[in-house]
Order: sequence, then structure tokens, then C-alpha cells
Amino acid sequence: MKRRAFFKNGALAALGGLVLPSFDLQAQTLGEAHKNKRTKNIIFMVSDGMSFGTLVMADLYLKRKFGRPSHWMGLYEQNLAQRAVMDMASASSVVTDSSAASSSWGGGVRVKNGSLNISPDGKENMPILQKFKKAGKKVGCVTTVMVNHATPAGFCTWSKSRNAMDEIALNYTELGFDVMLGGGSKYFDPAHRKDKKDLFAVLKKKGYTVARTRSEMQKAPTNKPLYGLFAEEALPYSIDRAQSSEEQAKTPTLAEMTAKAIDQLKNHPNGFVIQVEGGKVDWAAHANDIGALLYDQVAFDEAIGVALDFAKADGNTLVVLTSDHGNANPGLIYGKECNDNFDRLQNFTHSNDWILQQINANDSVAKVREHVAQYCGGMNISEEQAKELLGYYAKTERKEDGLYNYKHLPYRLFAEIQKAHTSVGWISMDHSSDYTELGMYGPGSERLKPFMRNTDIHNFLLEAAEVKV
Amino acid sequence: MKRRAFFKNGALAALGGLVLPSFDLQAQTLGEAHKNKRTKNIIFMVSDGMSFGTLVMADLYLKRKFGRPSHWMGLYEQNLAQRAVMDMASASSVVTDSSAASSSWGGGVRVKNGSLNISPDGKENMPILQKFKKAGKKVGCVTTVMVNHATPAGFCTWSKSRNAMDEIALNYTELGFDVMLGGGSKYFDPAHRKDKKDLFAVLKKKGYTVARTRSEMQKAPTNKPLYGLFAEEALPYSIDRAQSSEEQAKTPTLAEMTAKAIDQLKNHPNGFVIQVEGGKVDWAAHANDIGALLYDQVAFDEAIGVALDFAKADGNTLVVLTSDHGNANPGLIYGKECNDNFDRLQNFTHSNDWILQQINANDSVAKVREHVAQYCGGMNISEEQAKELLGYYAKTERKEDGLYNYKHLPYRLFAEIQKAHTSVGWISMDHSSDYTELGMYGPGSERLKPFMRNTDIHNFLLEAAEVKV
Repeated sequence: MKRRAFFKNGALAALGGLVLPSFDLQAQTLGEAHKNKRTKNIIFMVSDGMSFGTLVMADLYLKRKFGRPSHWMGLYEQNLAQRAVMDMASASSVVTDSSAASSSWGGGVRVKNGSLNISPDGKENMPILQKFKKAGKKVGCVTTVMVNHATPAGFCTWSKSRNAMDEIALNYTELGFDVMLGGGSKYFDPAHRKDKKDLFAVLKKKGYTVARTRSEMQKAPTNKPLYGLFAEEALPYSIDRAQSSEEQAKTPTLAEMTAKAIDQLKNHPNGFVIQVEGGKVDWAAHANDIGALLYDQVAFDEAIGVALDFAKADGNTLVVLTSDHGNANPGLIYGKECNDNFDRLQNFTHSNDWILQQINANDSVAKVREHVAQYCGGMNISEEQAKELLGYYAKTERKEDGLYNYKHLPYRLFAEIQKAHTSVGWISMDHSSDYTELGMYGPGSERLKPFMRNTDIHNFLLEAAEVKV
Repeated sequence: MKRRAFFKNGALAALGGLVLPSFDLQAQTLGEAHKNKRTKNIIFMVSDGMSFGTLVMADLYLKRKFGRPSHWMGLYEQNLAQRAVMDMASASSVVTDSSAASSSWGGGVRVKNGSLNISPDGKENMPILQKFKKAGKKVGCVTTVMVNHATPAGFCTWSKSRNAMDEIALNYTELGFDVMLGGGSKYFDPAHRKDKKDLFAVLKKKGYTVARTRSEMQKAPTNKPLYGLFAEEALPYSIDRAQSSEEQAKTPTLAEMTAKAIDQLKNHPNGFVIQVEGGKVDWAAHANDIGALLYDQVAFDEAIGVALDFAKADGNTLVVLTSDHGNANPGLIYGKECNDNFDRLQNFTHSNDWILQQINANDSVAKVREHVAQYCGGMNISEEQAKELLGYYAKTERKEDGLYNYKHLPYRLFAEIQKAHTSVGWISMDHSSDYTELGMYGPGSERLKPFMRNTDIHNFLLEAAEVKV
């Protein structure tokens, strides 16, 4: 038996035969990297409803198509991040919704599903961005869904119900936050609000730039606070935006919004804290929409790239990467065709949501088959499957429903049809109990332990940034 | 703005206002714990086909029923482990099978699905337990499936096909390994082997104790190598074993086998390396059998407890916790009833496999409903569902098939029926591409980086144990 150390690390090679003291060199290196740095800025990034399989499939897609890992997995591959599992249960359920999830981080207390930073006993828990604002930092939110939707709202404000979207938007105008970018313009618009208030006018009066398009956002001066509201409700799926020059002109990507938000805040002497949400990853999972899911996760990863570029250059920025809950637990399934089926997703050009909106009950079977093949990488559905789809549209009463299925499209039926062609399956059209992935890069990350209760992240962030409230 | 450090760690509380040097105290602590220790022994534990959701549900079950975490998650909660994600792809597919997965660890090379340590170009890769044996350690395998099944075999031997079970058992008799415990006796039995060889006699001639029951195993002397073969094929599911005094007399638990294997080897001056497999977690996932899955994962966790107790007392033992691939990606699904539905699993008393074997085509609808309620925690299936189940049995041609569905039972149909009552869903009845969870405890664990390619674990273990081959 040869009992010789032969570690790749040359410094240890000479120790052959000795009992080695400890193997903590790697951990020390990570600590060394952030020596003399502090957590001045925090970029808290949430891929909403990202099951672990979603993270993995985006990484596999990028490796197979471009020969590089995702920015998220790349951090792990380069040994630059700390990781934990995070238990996201709410006060009412093992399986959280997004408002209770964001409230657990934002207010540090578990609340019931559906509520925002109001405990079961009625107590209002101060949201973390208000704390950071009070402590002198600049703060804001960036999202691909409505800025007043559950995940940003849990960092910003209180409400008995996440559905009180008008009220939440009104609350926002009182907060004095520094940058809010995303969708949800209708909740600021007198034409849509029940109280007919013009929140755009209110914001402008308070000194905000209000951008309604990508170029307006990019031109916004950095010396004024900024609202950017680029859609009435959520922004389009990344996969659909990429096919529409109109949407590309109107709507920035999550990466572009992230870059702009950083740019607005980065020169503030006391630092900044922003939440960045890939909100439509969750919507795509609710729809079992693999094209939408994959490309929105990739878009989220591009935003991670922007955040990491800034953080690496800055040195005093903690980047947090996580999700608020699993959703539908998608995964690529074993089988002879699974590599080819997975690679077919490289040629998907529209979301199922978009594809299904184009189908009419009186389309021919041949037309439906061509339509699907055109936008789903040549996916060749059978005549029977096309007929089954058409049958759904012919029904007077549309049966499929769901959290974001406003148009009652046959999401589930189509996902079932796609399964044999993509090798991707789903457990349901809703959230799961899986603990979520939590990764951290930058000063403060070394304190992360491998298991995190959702509420503990509240104080973790305040403590890392040395903010006492 | 109050920029004061107020870490819970009292030693840092006095540093308020200062820029802190780094946060690597926690990482250093983990290193300190193993100072002056070495990786003399390795216990490599595989929950086969454990999707991340399986690990989470077992932890949630134990917390909700007994108020304590699983041993696996408990390590994370206590900050005693290092973690990584592991990319388990094989030479032929993004989604591996168990033989290619175990070969990637065992031989350090990716092989095609279905083969054991033989590369696509025909090269035989030396399995890691042969290397450790050659280096003077005692070695062995413990499993709830056949000892010559894919996962143990990938650590032990070569074969063009994992299905060459007779050949693999014959190979085993040449290896001189020190302890092999599990199922698969028929592959050693002249009455079942094609070549009619009596491998029991061969083993006894070579000095082995051959135990065929739990008590024979427990009485086996520690000064002789040991084979324990407790079933013709796989051992029973834990949930079924718990209801059968006959099985309890015949079959040890995975925890008991693990304890016995450690006991056989622990006094060897050069240390030992064993693989411990929770093999039927995978079978349960292939069957979408939630009762079988949950309780076999809990049984695996009990074996982890045994390994950790030994490792903590010993100090020179590395415990590796992982899975070889996801399977079916189960998860608990959002909904008002999901807590109660999940807790119903506490009252499940048999596997779906067992329950479905008891049903006959000429049973009454009422009898089927009672039968299901009795063994599934009072689960009240509808008359229509009972009729649908009975209809399956009435078919002359049984349609459901699957890797371990030898009896063509309606696994899928029954899992679909259960879904509304358990809130547990599945993406398929097969493996998934999810990167697997990898946790390590003990000396050597500090060297683990957050991303691991499956093949890299081969040298990681050899280097940790200072074995050069």
C-alpha cells in the first residue's frame, strides 16, 4: 500500500507519507479573496419558481450549444461561490407561494400564503428594502413581471393580499425607492386604476424619471430616481421577444434592466441593494412551457452575468442567487432520444403560450402540424395529436385554467404532446416543496452555512451589510 | 445609517464600525475539526435514483412526524458537511443509467449506459474497490438490491452489460473482497445459474461465511470475510418489511447491514472502503410508488446515522452521501390540502407494489376501495377510480411495463389516482438529468468544491485516502 500524498496542488506534493493537518486550503482561499472587502452592495437575484431541474437544464443547454456553463454553475465550477439549501415553507403550508416566500426574506417572518409581510397575528413586518433605505442605501427592484407583483412586493411593502395590486402600486409611490424596472404599468395608469389616480403623475412630481420604453430607460439620467414600466402586465417571454422587433424596441431584457439599475445606483457612497427577479420562469413552469422556461432561465442567467461582472470589478458587492420555490420539477427524462430531443429545444422559436394563441378551431389538421413544427424545432406531432388540440379549441367551454392561463389555452395538453419530442416532463402545474438552491458570491458569502431557513436570510443580509435596524 | 457589525458571534461584536477582514471563520472551523485526522476509511453512500425532492420529502416527513431532521439534512443544519452538485452524464447520454453512473465513480471514466467500467473504445477501467483492496484496505458493498446489481458492480468489476448478472456474480468470487451484503442469492445458486455452478460452495471454500438470514449475518465472526445474501433478487421495500415478522427475521435493514459491514472491517489497521446503496429508492421512483420511496429513503437515512455515529467516534472516516441520478423528480405540490395530504403518508403501511399485487379482477368495487384505504392512510378513492383499477386487471393483455415492473402492475394508473390524495407528482417513470446532491463529512471533505464531474470523484477518493495506483 502506497500511502503517499499526491495532490494536484504542488505545494502539498512534498508532504508524502505525512499525516496532513487539514484540507481547508480551498475554503481559506475563498476567504482570502474577500479580505479587506465589505458588503457595501447587495444584488439579490431570484429565478422565481425555479426547480433544480430548471437550473440544470439551462446549464446543459448552454454547455451543449455554446460550450460554456451558465454563469450560475460557472461560479460553482470555478469554486467562487458558497452554497446552501433553503427551506422556503410558509406559515400556512410546506409549499409556499411567491408572496409568503418573498415576505420570509423581506420581513424575516413566515406569513400565510397570499399575504405580504403581515403575520398571521396581524403584525406588520418591516420589509428589508425599507430598512436598507432607512440605513442610507439606495434600493430598488428589477423584474420581468409587474413591479408590484409578489416577489418584488415582499421586499418593498405590506398588504393583506398580494392581489391588491392597485393598493401595492399606490404604496410604492410613498416609498421613495431609487429604481423600479419591469412591467405593471396599468396599476399606475388612471385609465385602469379603480381610484382613477394617475400614479405616473405622482411619481414625476416626486422627481422620478418615468420610462415607458427600452430607449427611454437607457437615456434616463442617473441623478434622478427611475421608474421603468414597459408593459401593462408582465414583460413578454424572452423566446417571444427575440422574434419581435417591436418588443425589442419597447422592452429591455432582464440583463439590460439589471445593468441600468446598477448604473443608477453604483456611485452612491453608502452603497445599494437591489432585488432582480426572473419572474416569468415561474409563469412558464405554471404553463409547463419548456421553450419559455428554458429561455427565460437563460435570460436570468445573462442578468447574473451582468451582476457578476459588476461585483468582480467592484469587490464590495455580495451577489445572492436563489429561487423562492420549486415549480413543476421539470427534468430531462432518460431514453435513447433524450440528447436529440433536448437539443431540439435549441431550435424552438416561440413559447407555447404564443404558439397556442395562434391556433383557431377552424384551422386544418395539416396547418396545425406545420405551425407546431415551424416554432418547435421541427417537432412532428401526429394527426391524432393535432386533432386533439383542435378539439380543445372547438369546445365552447374551455376547460384548462391556471394561475397565469388568462386565455384558457391548452397548456397541459400541449405539454403532454411535447413530452415525447422534448423528453421533458413535469409533476404538475404548480409549486413544489423542494428546498431551493442558494448560492452567494462576494464578501459576506463565506458566512453562508449549508442549510438556511428562509427567514434567516433577512438578518444574514442586514448583518453582512453591517446595517442595524 | 448605522454601520455596525452585530454578528451573533460574540467575538466579532466588538468590531463595530470597522471593515471586517473576511468571513472565513466558519470555513476554517470545518477545517479545524479534522486537523490531525486523515481519511483512513471511506463510507460511500448512494441513494440510487434519489431526486432532490426525495431527499427533501424524507426530511420534511421526519421533521413533521418526529420533530427532527434527517441525518443527511441535519449535517447541513449543523454545518458539518461540505456540499457539491455532481454532473452524472454518461458517455452516451445526458441522462445516465446506474451502471454508467457507478462506473464513472468506480472507474473514473464515462462509459455508455448499460456497461460496467468498459469504455466505448473497449478499454477496461480498474474499479476503485480493486484499487483500494490492492492498496491494503478492506473493501465491500452493502445494498438493498442484488449485490451484483449495477451500483455495487460499478465499484467492483467489469462487464460489457449490467444484465450479465451470472457473469458478474462469478467475477465477484475472484475478487477476494471482505464483505458483501444484500440480495441476489439466485445468481450464486446452482439451481438458477445457467452454468449450474455453486458459487456458495466456491465462496465457502475461499473462507467466507455465507449468511442467508439476518441472524446468521449478525452471528458471523469478524475474523472471516462475509457474504450475506438475504433474498433471491432485491430485498423487500422497508415499508413492507415493517409489516412482516417473517421478513424481519430473514432480512436485515440497510442500517443493520451497514453496522455489520463496519463492524467486520473497522479493526483493520489499513482502514476500509465500503459502498452502501439504498437501491430500492430507485425502484420505487420507477414505480411512482410514494410509500415505498419515502420509507426506503428514510431507511437509507438510518444507515447514514449508523455511518455518522461510527465516523464521529472514529475521526478518520470520510462519509460520502450522494445519488447516481434523479428519478421521476417527485415533489409535494402546492394546494390547500398539501400539508394534510403529505401527513397522510405517515399512515401508509404498504408499498403500491404490495397493494396492487393483492387486487384481483373479480374483487368488488367496495373491496378495492377498502383495501386501498386500509393501507394508504384512509385514502378514499372514488368508485370510478376503483372501477378503473379493476378494469386494468380484467384486461387480458396487461399494458403497463417498466424496468422493475415484472408483474405488469398498474403502477402509473395508481400513482395518478393517489396524486390528489398525497399531493405528490412525478415527471415520468424514469431517470432525470438533474445534477445530483453530493455531501461529505469527515477528513477530506474540506477539499470538496461546489461542482463535481462524476469521474473526478474517483481520484478525489484515492487522493483523500492517500492511495496511489
